[in-house]
Amino acid sequence: MTFSEKLKHAWQDTDSLLMVGLDPDMGRLPSKLASTPDGLFVFCRDIIDATAPYVCGFKPQIAYFSAVGAEPVLHRLCQYIRKEYPDLVLMLDAKRGDIGATAQQYAIEAFDRYQADAVTINPYMGLDSAQPYLDRGDKGVIVLCRTSNPGGSDLQALSIDGVPLYLTVAEMVAKRWNQHGQCGLVVGATYPEELARVRQCVGDQMPLLVPGIGAQGGDILATCQAGCNSNGSGMMINSSRAILYASSGHDWAQASAHAAQATRDAINLARRQSVD
Amino acid sequence: MTFSEKLKHAWQDTDSLLMVGLDPDMGRLPSKLASTPDGLFVFCRDIIDATAPYVCGFKPQIAYFSAVGAEPVLHRLCQYIRKEYPDLVLMLDAKRGDIGATAQQYAIEAFDRYQADAVTINPYMGLDSAQPYLDRGDKGVIVLCRTSNPGGSDLQALSIDGVPLYLTVAEMVAKRWNQHGQCGLVVGATYPEELARVRQCVGDQMPLLVPGIGAQGGDILATCQAGCNSNGSGMMINSSRAILYASSGHDWAQASAHAAQATRDAINLARRQSVD
Repeated sequence: MTFSEKLKHAWQDTDSLLMVGLDPDMGRLPSKLASTPDGLFVFCRDIIDATAPYVCGFKPQIAYFSAVGAEPVLHRLCQYIRKEYPDLVLMLDAKRGDIGATAQQYAIEAFDRYQADAVTINPYMGLDSAQPYLDRGDKGVIVLCRTSNPGGSDLQALSIDGVPLYLTVAEMVAKRWNQHGQCGLVVGATYPEELARVRQCVGDQMPLLVPGIGAQGGDILATCQAGCNSNGSGMMINSSRAILYASSGHDWAQASAHAAQATRDAINLARRQSVD
Repeated sequence: MTFSEKLKHAWQDTDSLLMVGLDPDMGRLPSKLASTPDGLFVFCRDIIDATAPYVCGFKPQIAYFSAVGAEPVLHRLCQYIRKEYPDLVLMLDAKRGDIGATAQQYAIEAFDRYQADAVTINPYMGLDSAQPYLDRGDKGVIVLCRTSNPGGSDLQALSIDGVPLYLTVAEMVAKRWNQHGQCGLVVGATYPEELARVRQCVGDQMPLLVPGIGAQGGDILATCQAGCNSNGSGMMINSSRAILYASSGHDWAQASAHAAQATRDAINLARRQSVD
């Protein structure tokens, strides 16, 4: 099954557009876990188990593991997700970008070592830097387009003959990079008008990975009105910190479940309003 | 000592602008090493020892280690370089790019875990995505500008009011990101005219990391004429594959030394011609 098929099934079967980002900051682990050697794994695994009923997938952010030399923990978590939740999407958030020979190594890292269904990449180096990922036709390739951070505008809002760079990237990916129908775009929830322009540009089929709700403050209704396709679907709406750190007490796993359920419900309400 | 000071000393003391890129493809190790458990470390260490007399620094490419789960090997190699060659620059080629909180983790990875003097980053997400690296004022932050691969033009050559994106990035980094004098730019040797425009834009002080000679075919004389500053210096000219794989036989280390020496000499001849 390809990434696109798996994602469509996950959306349908779970009735959820929510993706939980696994960005485990060692400084924010519950005190009970912070001092145990396996605390990082246990924290993430329990978040996964607690939130799995409410999500279409998980998105581990590799930086949080790399900073502390915990690639083996990331590896175990990816194996755990694939074994216990084989129908949910596993996306590696890595935002890689390099020349072809090097990108080939990063593709091996994401798809073979970590067995991810999809990976995030950076478009700055152009098509040949994306090719090794695209050559894996069954895998998803999610390209940075309009990011949710304030500095996103520094380059992405620059005007190319009246068209902002992020929209030029959206069009380039949709028309030239997406030969296998495997591409998606990262578009932040913090800019709903621009999210709407990207959706209009790429049409109904392309999935959008949308960070920026939760801790970053993006509005869920505005996000759904702007980014849903005509079926009221088409997005992986990511939340990381608001779910991982819903509570710092003993009830952290339960609190993350509640936060995930509430977020999924808010998204479902909003997407139904947005297609009415 | 800051990165900039260390680099200037290295250029002066070694009389070399050559940087050796450590991109060790497991499929290309000498047969004697390919089957040994420590082959990857031994290969890189022997390349380092063989080429150290001819270089201003080393640039490990993290993708080649990450693809095979060899972060501990990379860690040992970085420790080795810092211990045995403390005056040579250690640059981690990672091309990271992510929002602030995540970039903070990548900065820890590069500067604390691997103890690099400098790291390469991607500008697509803007200033706040670079800030965690820039906040480490003693470290070098080398920003992708005009990359050496063919697809580099897909985005980087797009025109912003008549100015190509790569030059807009060069100006942005020079004027806004470089408050601590710690920034450099990646500009490929495969586009000497554009290298010259970048040098003209950023002035004499900013170091340029220049890949693309060797296996990628960039011309050394044209590169020096285009990219040297008025002192006939100012570049870290990188070569990876042409030096690592100078021979696949028993003499691979010796061959890499000869290749490094010949490349350094060719660069020194060219830089002296270019300032005459």
